[in-house]
Amino acid sequence: MKTHHIAIMGLGTVGGGAYDILTQNREHIKSTQGLDISVKLILDRNDEPLKKRGIPTKLFCDSVDKLAADKDVELVIETMGGVEPAKTFITKMLTAGKSVVTANKELLAKCWHELEPIAKAHGCGLFFEASCVGGVPIIRALGESFQGDRVKSIYGIINGTTNYILSKMSSENCSYAEALKKAQELGYAEFDPTSDVDGYDAAYKLSILCSLAFHTCVPYGSIFRDGITKVTASDIKNAHDLGYEIKLLAIGKREGDGLEARVHPVFVPKDHPLASVSGAYNAVYLNGDFVGDLMFYGAGAGAHPTGSAIVSDVIKALSGKPKYCEFENNGKLDGSVKLIGDFVSGYYICVTVDDKVGVLSRISTILGNNGVSIKAATQVPGSDDGATVVFLTHLAREHAVMQSLEAIGKLAAVRSIDSMIRVL
Amino acid sequence: MKTHHIAIMGLGTVGGGAYDILTQNREHIKSTQGLDISVKLILDRNDEPLKKRGIPTKLFCDSVDKLAADKDVELVIETMGGVEPAKTFITKMLTAGKSVVTANKELLAKCWHELEPIAKAHGCGLFFEASCVGGVPIIRALGESFQGDRVKSIYGIINGTTNYILSKMSSENCSYAEALKKAQELGYAEFDPTSDVDGYDAAYKLSILCSLAFHTCVPYGSIFRDGITKVTASDIKNAHDLGYEIKLLAIGKREGDGLEARVHPVFVPKDHPLASVSGAYNAVYLNGDFVGDLMFYGAGAGAHPTGSAIVSDVIKALSGKPKYCEFENNGKLDGSVKLIGDFVSGYYICVTVDDKVGVLSRISTILGNNGVSIKAATQVPGSDDGATVVFLTHLAREHAVMQSLEAIGKLAAVRSIDSMIRVL
Repeated sequence: MKTHHIAIMGLGTVGGGAYDILTQNREHIKSTQGLDISVKLILDRNDEPLKKRGIPTKLFCDSVDKLAADKDVELVIETMGGVEPAKTFITKMLTAGKSVVTANKELLAKCWHELEPIAKAHGCGLFFEASCVGGVPIIRALGESFQGDRVKSIYGIINGTTNYILSKMSSENCSYAEALKKAQELGYAEFDPTSDVDGYDAAYKLSILCSLAFHTCVPYGSIFRDGITKVTASDIKNAHDLGYEIKLLAIGKREGDGLEARVHPVFVPKDHPLASVSGAYNAVYLNGDFVGDLMFYGAGAGAHPTGSAIVSDVIKALSGKPKYCEFENNGKLDGSVKLIGDFVSGYYICVTVDDKVGVLSRISTILGNNGVSIKAATQVPGSDDGATVVFLTHLAREHAVMQSLEAIGKLAAVRSIDSMIRVL
Repeated sequence: MKTHHIAIMGLGTVGGGAYDILTQNREHIKSTQGLDISVKLILDRNDEPLKKRGIPTKLFCDSVDKLAADKDVELVIETMGGVEPAKTFITKMLTAGKSVVTANKELLAKCWHELEPIAKAHGCGLFFEASCVGGVPIIRALGESFQGDRVKSIYGIINGTTNYILSKMSSENCSYAEALKKAQELGYAEFDPTSDVDGYDAAYKLSILCSLAFHTCVPYGSIFRDGITKVTASDIKNAHDLGYEIKLLAIGKREGDGLEARVHPVFVPKDHPLASVSGAYNAVYLNGDFVGDLMFYGAGAGAHPTGSAIVSDVIKALSGKPKYCEFENNGKLDGSVKLIGDFVSGYYICVTVDDKVGVLSRISTILGNNGVSIKAATQVPGSDDGATVVFLTHLAREHAVMQSLEAIGKLAAVRSIDSMIRVL
C-alpha cells in the first residue's frame, strides 16, 4: 500500500487533535479506507509544540518554502487560524499543487473566492469541513446530500462559547458576566471573547453555510449581526415563563428571490429540537423543499471533534478528485439576489415604565400604528413606582418594530427599553 | 448539456415522490449540479399509477427486459419493495450495466452481498441512501464523514410507525391498541403492522447501518429483536414518573472485539436528545472515538423525504465513480467477530404481587443472588390485596436478569411479571 505523506501547518489544539487521530487510528484508516497516511512535516514557529506533545522533532519544519518544495508531501492541513499568514501559506501550498484541508472559518469567509481559483488552476482541492460546526458533517451534507432539494432555511446554533454561556445562564439563572467568567475558566471562552459573544464567529460560519446552501456567495459582511452581551438574567427568566429558551441563532432563509442572513439571540420554543441543544453542543436545523426538516447535532468545537472533520477531509482529498464551487464566487453578493434587511419575525420586548394608568395603552397604540400586533403582554410592579412590561408580538416587520421602539423610548412615562429579542 | 435518461421501477408512494422531485426541481438540479436528468421510462404492472399521478402514459413500460435493453437508460430507481421480483429486476439492470438506486431495506438487508458483486462486475453502482431513515443522510454520513473514527455505538429511532405509536401513548396516555388504530387511520401503520411493531423493519435498517459503521457484515438474522406490542400505558406512566420516555431503539455497539446488535423498547432519560424525537420523526445518535456524539434527525419516511434521498443518490451515481463495500461481505457474520447476546443494560421491571410482608425482600434476594443490583424500587397498592412493584436496576447482565425473572415468576406471592424494559 502506497504511503501518502502529508503535513500540518500550526500545531495548536486542532492541529494536535488531527495528529492524534492520524497516528492513533492509522491502522484503522488503512484497513477501512485503503489509505496509509503519514504526517511527514509539521510547520510551526518553533519545535516546542511538538516537544510538548511528545511528537518526534524530526517532523519539525521551520520554513513554509521548504514545505512547499517537498515533493513527497501531497496534502497540507492548515490549523493556524486567522487570515495572515495562513492565506499566504495556503496559497503557496496550492500553487505547489498540494491540496489543502483547513479549519479556518475566518479565512474561508473572507478569502474563499480568492483561494478556490488557485486550487482549481493547480488541479488540487481546498477542503473545509472542519471550518464549520466542529465534528458535525454539515459541509458534506450541504454539498452531497439532498442535492435535489432547494434549501429554504437554515437555523444554526454554531458557536459553542455563546451556547455554553446562554445554557449556563438558563440552568443556573446567573448573569451574563458570571457565565462568561465560568466559560473563560473552563477554556470555552477566550480572554477577549469578542469574536464569539458579538457573533463574528457565527457570521463567518453562516457565510460559508449559506453560500453552499443557497448556491450563491453570501459575504460575511452582508450578514446582520447582534451578539449576546445584552441578554440579561431577567430575559432568560421571562423566556422560561413564556415557554422559551434563548439561543444565539445563525439564520439563513430564502424568501422569494431574496435571502435573509442574520446572527442574533432568539427566543426558541421549548419544544423545538434546537431548544435542547445545550452547553458546548452545536446543531444545524434546516428545511429543504422536499426533504423537510433535518437536524445535525454534535460537538461544535474541540481538538478531537474538529480533528475528526479534518481527517475526514484528508481521506476525501486523497480518495478522489477535488470538487469546486459550482456558482460564480467573486466574494460579492450576486446582483440578482436581494438581501432582506426588513425581515419578518416575532419579537419579545421588555420596557420599564412609570406605574401609571394609560402607559400600556400608549405603548400599544404606537405598536398598533406601526402595524405591530401584540400576542401577549404582562406587567409586573417594580421599584420606585415603576413597572416592567413584557410584550410578545405576532409576526411583524423588523423596521416597524424598530420605529415603534424609537417612538416608545420617547414617551415620558417610559424609563428604559430594556430588551428586544427576536422570537422563532 | 447532456441529458441523462433514467427509469423508475415501481411507481408507489416513494417512486412517485422521487418523480415529483426530478420533474419539479429539474431546472434547479441542472443549475446547481450541472446534470440534466430525465425520467424516460416507468415500469409497473399497468399504467394506472401513471394516470393517477397525471404522468404521460408514453413513459409506461410493461417489460423489465425491454427496460434492461434500452441503451438510453443509464440508471434505474427501484421503489418496488420486498425481495422478489425486486431482486431479479435489479439483477437484470446491473447486468445490463445500469446503476441502481434503491429504497429497499429488506432486499438490502437480505441480499446486499449478492447484488454488490454483480454491480462491481459490471462497473456500475448500487446506491441505497433511501433504504434507511428516509431523508436523513445517514448512509452518506457513515460512508463519507468521520471516516477516521472508529464508531463505538449507534442508537437509532429508525422506525416511524413505532415512534408515532409510542409518542401517541406518551402524550395521550392511551393504550397500545388505541395508538395503533390511530396510526392505521393516518396511514402511518399498515393494516398488518407486524413488520413495524415487531421490529423487523428496524432490524433490516440496523443490519445495514451496523455493517457500514463497523465495517463488517452484521446479518439481520443475527440481530436480537423485540417489538413494542407488550408496552402498556402503565409502563409509559411509570417511565414518566421516573424521568424517562419509552422508545423503540435500534442499537449497535462495539464492545472489545465483540458487537451488540439489538432492537427493543428502551427507557430513554428525558434529557437525552433521543427522548424528544417524537411522532414520525427519526434520529440516529452515534458515538465515534474522536468525533464524540453526533445526532442526525429528520423525517424517517414519506414520499418526499425518501424521494429526496433517492434523488441525492441519482445525482451521486451520475456524478462520479461507484464505490464498493471495503469489507468482505458474504452475508454472514465474520468468524472473528463475537456477537454479544449477554449484553449489559439497566432494567425496568414491573411485577404484581400479593401485598404481604416479605415479598419485596424475597424478590430483592433473587436479584441480588444473580448479581443484579437495585437502583430504585416503589410499591403501589393494587386491587385484591395485590400490589405493583416497580424496579429500576443498575447495570446488569441480560442473562442474569432473565434468570432472576424466571425465579421471581415462580415465587408463590408473585402473581405476574408484567413488564421488563431495558434502560439506556
